[in-house]
Amino acid sequence: MHELDADTAIEHRGDGRFGGTVTDRWNIGPVPNGGYVMCFGVRALGQVLPPPDPLTVTAHFLRPAVPGPVEIDTEVVKIGKNHATGQARLHQGGKDIVRITGTFGDLSAGDGPRHVTGEPPTMPPPEACTPRGDFGPKPVIGDRFDQYVDPDCLHWPHGRTGPAELRAYSRFADGRPLDTLSLILYADGMPPPAFNVMAPGWVPTVELTVHVRARPAPGWLRSRFRTRYMFGGYLDEDGEMWDDTGALVALSRQLAATPREPWGDRL
Amino acid sequence: MHELDADTAIEHRGDGRFGGTVTDRWNIGPVPNGGYVMCFGVRALGQVLPPPDPLTVTAHFLRPAVPGPVEIDTEVVKIGKNHATGQARLHQGGKDIVRITGTFGDLSAGDGPRHVTGEPPTMPPPEACTPRGDFGPKPVIGDRFDQYVDPDCLHWPHGRTGPAELRAYSRFADGRPLDTLSLILYADGMPPPAFNVMAPGWVPTVELTVHVRARPAPGWLRSRFRTRYMFGGYLDEDGEMWDDTGALVALSRQLAATPREPWGDRL
Repeated sequence: MHELDADTAIEHRGDGRFGGTVTDRWNIGPVPNGGYVMCFGVRALGQVLPPPDPLTVTAHFLRPAVPGPVEIDTEVVKIGKNHATGQARLHQGGKDIVRITGTFGDLSAGDGPRHVTGEPPTMPPPEACTPRGDFGPKPVIGDRFDQYVDPDCLHWPHGRTGPAELRAYSRFADGRPLDTLSLILYADGMPPPAFNVMAPGWVPTVELTVHVRARPAPGWLRSRFRTRYMFGGYLDEDGEMWDDTGALVALSRQLAATPREPWGDRL
Repeated sequence: MHELDADTAIEHRGDGRFGGTVTDRWNIGPVPNGGYVMCFGVRALGQVLPPPDPLTVTAHFLRPAVPGPVEIDTEVVKIGKNHATGQARLHQGGKDIVRITGTFGDLSAGDGPRHVTGEPPTMPPPEACTPRGDFGPKPVIGDRFDQYVDPDCLHWPHGRTGPAELRAYSRFADGRPLDTLSLILYADGMPPPAFNVMAPGWVPTVELTVHVRARPAPGWLRSRFRTRYMFGGYLDEDGEMWDDTGALVALSRQLAATPREPWGDRL
């Protein structure tokens, strides 16, 4: 079993309630990554909703998760002909940590008009990019991925500012194939591109929404994350994810709070 | 009392349950507009959550609303120091129509680093733009707004295709001032820009998320809506809203299904 699957394993305890264990293998500093924690909810929803694919999933992050037991209570909101919608309440020690709402559907059933104006990020080949460990401290979650970042968008590691955009190749270090679940993880799996325009610090996600638009083909995931509007204590972070065939597979957007204090060397 | 406030009035019936009446004055064809219906949930959350402003609100649309009574059951998920999160279940006749999750905060409290790369849409002045009623059929909701669309982005009304982008000025026809609630409405208050690249038809919203980033100044709301990825039966629609001082006040994104059949003259 691959790491992501083992580390998000859940067991059904009846009445739509699931239990699992948050590991410390997807941490950033002392805190399990939000996209990783979200995967518990998406897996639980996948067990109670009939359609195969998460189409749109929104998570509101209430408290940092901690490594240890997690419970996931699901509610089936509606099962329709094309879509099914459910909610998942993730809690640890009686405290809510994440609320998730997801609508599932069948990404193989789609048809209809086609109009695509975006393109995968233009980057040098992976071997000409910078591995995640080669700029600044690599958090523990970085060991779960092979991640190569376009060196042209690495500014803060060199002490300068630049556009708040990061482009990267990603895949699992243990060879796990990409699937729709992994896109939820990768939507929160990069350093904040805002680090290029501010002193790096903790950027807590308030809410993250991922639109999964296609089942990814095997190979590299190519992603671009960008922050356009940082002010008033908050920032947006928009992500686009493309598979190795050049197909768009997911869009993501999060609202996060800007750091109250810079990190310094705390990682 | 202004139309939006009267038509989304709710009364508390105890235990976080509210009641109201969906009117037919915000209809598109026979169906009350999704952004309008969402306002019932946002108002109810505003009554149970202490902070003044909706920061991020996500709605999953389950069934079309109908004019008539609506009930809104709220749950306070967490009240924290800076944010409060709640959920609202909107139902009519015992059937769920919309599920909403919102995190509220205080938009006047914000500070921190600033980095803004986007700009308000470039448009001719309102008097040189096209009023909503002057292209194609105007739905009933169109009477609630003064809405002027940049003629350079009106392609389908002239029987041609063009970029899937709409730029417009909007304000309430009855002079109601803009506020954060109205941004939720305006996030779903324009024809789909995808009409420029496909046969117009019903584009049902699956999920809509609005990030409210600032309290809007009085005057025109300037907005830009764009669809970049239409395939496999779904499309994205991204919105940016700017106030009359040129400040970004909201970002929106929805996942919608592409039409199963064109409208023809059904409006």
